[in-house]
Amino acid sequence: MRTLAEYVQRIETPDAKTYQTALNRLQEQARPRGSLGKLEDLSARLAGISKTLDVRLTSKVIVTCAGDHGVVEEGVSLFPQEVTPQMVQAFVSDGASINVLARHAGARVLVADLGVNCDFDPDLPIVHKKVRKGTRNMAQGPAMTRNEAEQSVWAGIEIVDQLADQGLDMLGTGDMGIGNTTPSTAIIAAFSGLPVAQLTGRGTGLDDERLAHKIRVIEQALEVNRPDPRDPLDVLAKVGGLEIGGLAGLVIGAAAHRIPVVCDGFIATAGALIGCEIAPLAKHYLFPSHRSVEKGHAYMHDRLGLDPLLDLEFRLGEGTGAAVAMELLDASTRILAEIKTFAELRVSNAQG
Amino acid sequence: MRTLAEYVQRIETPDAKTYQTALNRLQEQARPRGSLGKLEDLSARLAGISKTLDVRLTSKVIVTCAGDHGVVEEGVSLFPQEVTPQMVQAFVSDGASINVLARHAGARVLVADLGVNCDFDPDLPIVHKKVRKGTRNMAQGPAMTRNEAEQSVWAGIEIVDQLADQGLDMLGTGDMGIGNTTPSTAIIAAFSGLPVAQLTGRGTGLDDERLAHKIRVIEQALEVNRPDPRDPLDVLAKVGGLEIGGLAGLVIGAAAHRIPVVCDGFIATAGALIGCEIAPLAKHYLFPSHRSVEKGHAYMHDRLGLDPLLDLEFRLGEGTGAAVAMELLDASTRILAEIKTFAELRVSNAQG
Repeated sequence: MRTLAEYVQRIETPDAKTYQTALNRLQEQARPRGSLGKLEDLSARLAGISKTLDVRLTSKVIVTCAGDHGVVEEGVSLFPQEVTPQMVQAFVSDGASINVLARHAGARVLVADLGVNCDFDPDLPIVHKKVRKGTRNMAQGPAMTRNEAEQSVWAGIEIVDQLADQGLDMLGTGDMGIGNTTPSTAIIAAFSGLPVAQLTGRGTGLDDERLAHKIRVIEQALEVNRPDPRDPLDVLAKVGGLEIGGLAGLVIGAAAHRIPVVCDGFIATAGALIGCEIAPLAKHYLFPSHRSVEKGHAYMHDRLGLDPLLDLEFRLGEGTGAAVAMELLDASTRILAEIKTFAELRVSNAQG
Repeated sequence: MRTLAEYVQRIETPDAKTYQTALNRLQEQARPRGSLGKLEDLSARLAGISKTLDVRLTSKVIVTCAGDHGVVEEGVSLFPQEVTPQMVQAFVSDGASINVLARHAGARVLVADLGVNCDFDPDLPIVHKKVRKGTRNMAQGPAMTRNEAEQSVWAGIEIVDQLADQGLDMLGTGDMGIGNTTPSTAIIAAFSGLPVAQLTGRGTGLDDERLAHKIRVIEQALEVNRPDPRDPLDVLAKVGGLEIGGLAGLVIGAAAHRIPVVCDGFIATAGALIGCEIAPLAKHYLFPSHRSVEKGHAYMHDRLGLDPLLDLEFRLGEGTGAAVAMELLDASTRILAEIKTFAELRVSNAQG
């Protein structure tokens, strides 16, 4: 059996020569240098990944990973755990936020069950990758075993392996899981060593009192488990989540297949962070979509060394921010391929 | 002959009832309240404008207004004035930045000559609305007469009148004019009374020395002309530009026809500011696309009381930021129309 370390070895850096050729072309285009800001470097990165200046992001899929969290018994979320399977049903019935925004972006939505606390009908058109029915309560002990954590990462990798076989140009990541801002905050706290209070947000709308309680629960989870920040699987197992492991696997898998991956908000970025700690080269394939309202999100982007594209004050998840950002990635590829250089314009004006 | 004041009287406020119905529906959707941030209010505003919850922004046009500026003889720009007509030719030949980004957004580009300092072939497929061949040097006296300023605003209005007859769902504004960050900065300085140094940016890339010179030129233009901030046509005539007047007219015209108008960067926003000072109700129809790198831009948004959607560090103009933002407005209409409420999901799950 292959090990995770063996799979990670497959990841290559993008093509530096194509990246540089792209930067050169952008500078020669008939406009002031750097005038298209963040979309310029974006387009050059995508060129380096695809090894062409005419990148076509035709086949797009957003994978929304779902899982439940034992820590909800501490009262860290406004919504009951039953909402997780209800939302999975909503995704399947095509009427949820992610369905609408993915359709607008021309992307297909794939829902993956990594660990929802229920038995889904096996015929439900989702990817069945349940590792266990929700994590354990991390305030009392490890959320998962190390083996379960690794299984969740492999599940994400296998999803991309299969999508890549069918032909995939761009992957988006999203999450669903009641209570999952709590483990995500614990993850960035574990890696950064920053005070939990500085990193903890209101999730779907906690008041001051419940926010203070959430902070105490996360502090307790870190004290009880003492996750090792140099060991990302240990962090994932002790204070993470099953869908977060799946999200980490998606990033690793996308990088191995040289597919750009647009990550969504706070939870998807927590997964991406785990993925990039396991496989540092994966960062080259990662495009954070937006900065969410959740306080700890900016610290995740700092640690990744990557800037998000949008700040629309989203705090939903599901992959909604990734869907919106996909259109910007698309636009950036057209900038690189289609805006003429001064030399090209002179030729076309002479002919016209 | 109609007066500008008579035309402005046609502008109505959007439908408050539809706006409120939209906000109610957004709150009932199967997701946490407010979780789609800025796109929510956007979608409700568009609903109020169109008087429907199912807004369809199908026919989109970006009007790029071009004009030249006498003040370039003071050395305020890195590029020579000849670049303005060259870029107009580039827009017509379909290979410039705005062509590429408008195509991506599904919008048509219409180039309007408000005052380029050259004689275009009358058969060139642009909107011929030249008021005069460039403004006078505002550092030495008024850029235009009051009559010329008013003509440029009317030209913008007439363009929208004609587009609306053909069927228009969303208008984008853009600019082309070497040197036009200088009058745009003077306009926000005149309205805000803030120090010119605080508002002046590097345009297409001035170094420190040339930036200091640009600041002195703008200060001189304000001293020589003493524009009256309570009289927007006076500001436009004395320290504005012909394409800026056209851009003001576009906003007024769009509002009169109840058409949402997405304004581009620093220069297009200067035009929108003039437009909204002439016709305060026009603000209800205005959607600032992005915050540009130009320093004074944020002060314009403050004065308008409107937040831009994007911050991609653009500093190009042409309508490029408007084109990118159009896709967000589009996405917001789908959010309102298509995301199901909890009640609708229960029905569809019961049927499924």
